[in-house]
Amino acid sequence: MTPLRVDGGKLMEQLEALGAVGRREDGSCCRLALTDEDRQGRDLVVSWMRELGLEVRVDRIGNILALRPGREDLPPVMTGSHIDTVATGGKYDGNYGVLAGLEVVRTLDRAGIRTRRPLAVAVFTNEEGARFQSDMLGSMVYAGAMGLEEALAWPAADGPTLGAELERIGYAGTLEPGAVVPHAFVELHIEQGPILDHEGGALGAVERLQGISWQEVTVRGKANHAGTTPIPLRRDAGLGAARIVCFVRDLARDLGGVGTVGSLRFSPGLVNVIPREAVLTVDLRHPDEGRLREAEARLERFLDGQAREDGLEIRTRRLVRTEPVVFDPGVVAAVREAAALLGQQARPMTSGAGQDAQMLARICPTAMIFVPSIGGVSHSPAERTRPEHLALGADVLLNTLLKLADD
Amino acid sequence: MTPLRVDGGKLMEQLEALGAVGRREDGSCCRLALTDEDRQGRDLVVSWMRELGLEVRVDRIGNILALRPGREDLPPVMTGSHIDTVATGGKYDGNYGVLAGLEVVRTLDRAGIRTRRPLAVAVFTNEEGARFQSDMLGSMVYAGAMGLEEALAWPAADGPTLGAELERIGYAGTLEPGAVVPHAFVELHIEQGPILDHEGGALGAVERLQGISWQEVTVRGKANHAGTTPIPLRRDAGLGAARIVCFVRDLARDLGGVGTVGSLRFSPGLVNVIPREAVLTVDLRHPDEGRLREAEARLERFLDGQAREDGLEIRTRRLVRTEPVVFDPGVVAAVREAAALLGQQARPMTSGAGQDAQMLARICPTAMIFVPSIGGVSHSPAERTRPEHLALGADVLLNTLLKLADD
Repeated sequence: MTPLRVDGGKLMEQLEALGAVGRREDGSCCRLALTDEDRQGRDLVVSWMRELGLEVRVDRIGNILALRPGREDLPPVMTGSHIDTVATGGKYDGNYGVLAGLEVVRTLDRAGIRTRRPLAVAVFTNEEGARFQSDMLGSMVYAGAMGLEEALAWPAADGPTLGAELERIGYAGTLEPGAVVPHAFVELHIEQGPILDHEGGALGAVERLQGISWQEVTVRGKANHAGTTPIPLRRDAGLGAARIVCFVRDLARDLGGVGTVGSLRFSPGLVNVIPREAVLTVDLRHPDEGRLREAEARLERFLDGQAREDGLEIRTRRLVRTEPVVFDPGVVAAVREAAALLGQQARPMTSGAGQDAQMLARICPTAMIFVPSIGGVSHSPAERTRPEHLALGADVLLNTLLKLADD
Repeated sequence: MTPLRVDGGKLMEQLEALGAVGRREDGSCCRLALTDEDRQGRDLVVSWMRELGLEVRVDRIGNILALRPGREDLPPVMTGSHIDTVATGGKYDGNYGVLAGLEVVRTLDRAGIRTRRPLAVAVFTNEEGARFQSDMLGSMVYAGAMGLEEALAWPAADGPTLGAELERIGYAGTLEPGAVVPHAFVELHIEQGPILDHEGGALGAVERLQGISWQEVTVRGKANHAGTTPIPLRRDAGLGAARIVCFVRDLARDLGGVGTVGSLRFSPGLVNVIPREAVLTVDLRHPDEGRLREAEARLERFLDGQAREDGLEIRTRRLVRTEPVVFDPGVVAAVREAAALLGQQARPMTSGAGQDAQMLARICPTAMIFVPSIGGVSHSPAERTRPEHLALGADVLLNTLLKLADD
């Protein structure tokens, strides 16, 4: 039996049309959550949902659900993602998962297929966390991991609350978030990392998502003259910070996972003054919670030892901490089978980035499908995925949803 | 024979009076070169010179020479320093050397002593290099190491040329810089480093001055997602920079001298983005030119190797380079003998900071005397030296000058 396939051309057309909303001179998309640009993007996507005859419902946190009835009145199989962007976003991050979901519906309509279970395509509010600085906020509320009132009161970086902005742009719905509990959830997304592109692969079946540990580390020493202070009398906060940067790399090498110091600044920052203070961030990620805790504990011991040996004062402040998420083996298997049906292999993968799917995984069997992102680029106007990969990802989504919806 | 001693009280009084000119709320002195505050400081010091009956001459680069005749018409024995400050200067850096010189004259007057050779007390223009960013500029021109026209055209950080500012504050003199070649030069200065204070010593006989090598290093890698980019695929400019910081410390440990990274900044500087670029400064100092060159060569090899291994682009830009200066053993011996005459030991020392004396060493036998700076603090309102150390330093200066002037 020949597997069903989507119309890649129509998908590309809608990706371009949505990508043009909030486009800036440098080619980037700027549709920060619940701005006028986000509203325009939402209106466009909702118009496409209605063209497909879908029942569009908006919940109290602004998540949009487009429902396609099944042969039986059962919980739907859901797909979707988000359409908000960072300030310099690309065309595919989030948008691709939503529009591929609509392309699946379009393909089923064309083929005259009605699945046993209903289907749902979701657009989650404020996934990026760029304007309201708590990422995956809409899906978090949907999954019951954050209270609705807390979320509605969340302030934008530019002032107003999330609730007020939802009202302003006309997306404060009446549905209770999470009222529709999916039978399963599958999110299609560009990888936002270089692994598939580097290996020449076309598809990833995402089995898990890393836990994330962010800390800010402040190292305090003593400012002194760089020419006249002998090495043994120094308390050099900059050197202390540099050793932490090197240690974080060693930690990632030893324990697997990744570790990054993305930000580091010396004070007073003069060529001939030994740094008095250095402030840096440490980003540790690991798919295994035990290993992530071990990494944090080793870092803590290293900081203690260094403070003692080098006469430094070292303080840490927790910025973010999420546990790893393990996706549902049955849904991952469905993804791999769908790929096999199309003559492809889906590489088992770990997501390094946070995704709406990690929230949905709290309430239903969930997995993700990745397609390559050229050079691993994301959150940039240079974000690009080859059209044949975009079409292939949508084909795999289609066949995965078909399998899950007809179980 | 009881050695002659200065009046420490009078010296302290003048140090306080000069320290009050340009004083800020936080207690620091701000007399940037050739500003109105510098003019006020100069006017005050010149008035004290005239009170002592000295012949005051100003050269074309604004250096002030106060001359006291000797019994014979010979080249003078000169002392002095500078009275300009950094933006947050202390009361002793520079001022002490000038005012102790005047106190020596006052003491000789009081004792009715006329030396064989004339004496001179000099105030050199723009030693700090804080406003006109070439330090020791006045003494450099005096010693013929920089052309007068080049120096007069030097722009202030705030705009006008040095020549225009000299005219404006009335210190564009007519004497050719360097027209008076000293028989010998001795500069008395606070240590600006912690060695004497740390060891509990009261006096240093400065034998040499470190060579200084300043470079700016730019490390370029590739910005990428901190969660999704596997360690082996990273080109992390921040890690590259941190390794340089650690290497600079190792270099100082291995070769002696000192090495400092005072400034380091990552771009884009976000917690979850691998740094694309890191810019740092490297300050290497060593009393031996061969060792300093070796340190520079080792650093260069390290940077080359690191660029190759880690896929980074590393560029260096030279900021400052001065060779070490070896002071005159005869003048150093005179300092140590003067200390011994006062029942003290003067510790042989290397100056880590640049000083006017290093320029004078180009044209005449030169050395320096150091007194302790509490905690090694300098360029700060917290710069402090105990009054008995200030008086003792002036006593040593007095007896050193007596010895050199009566040779």
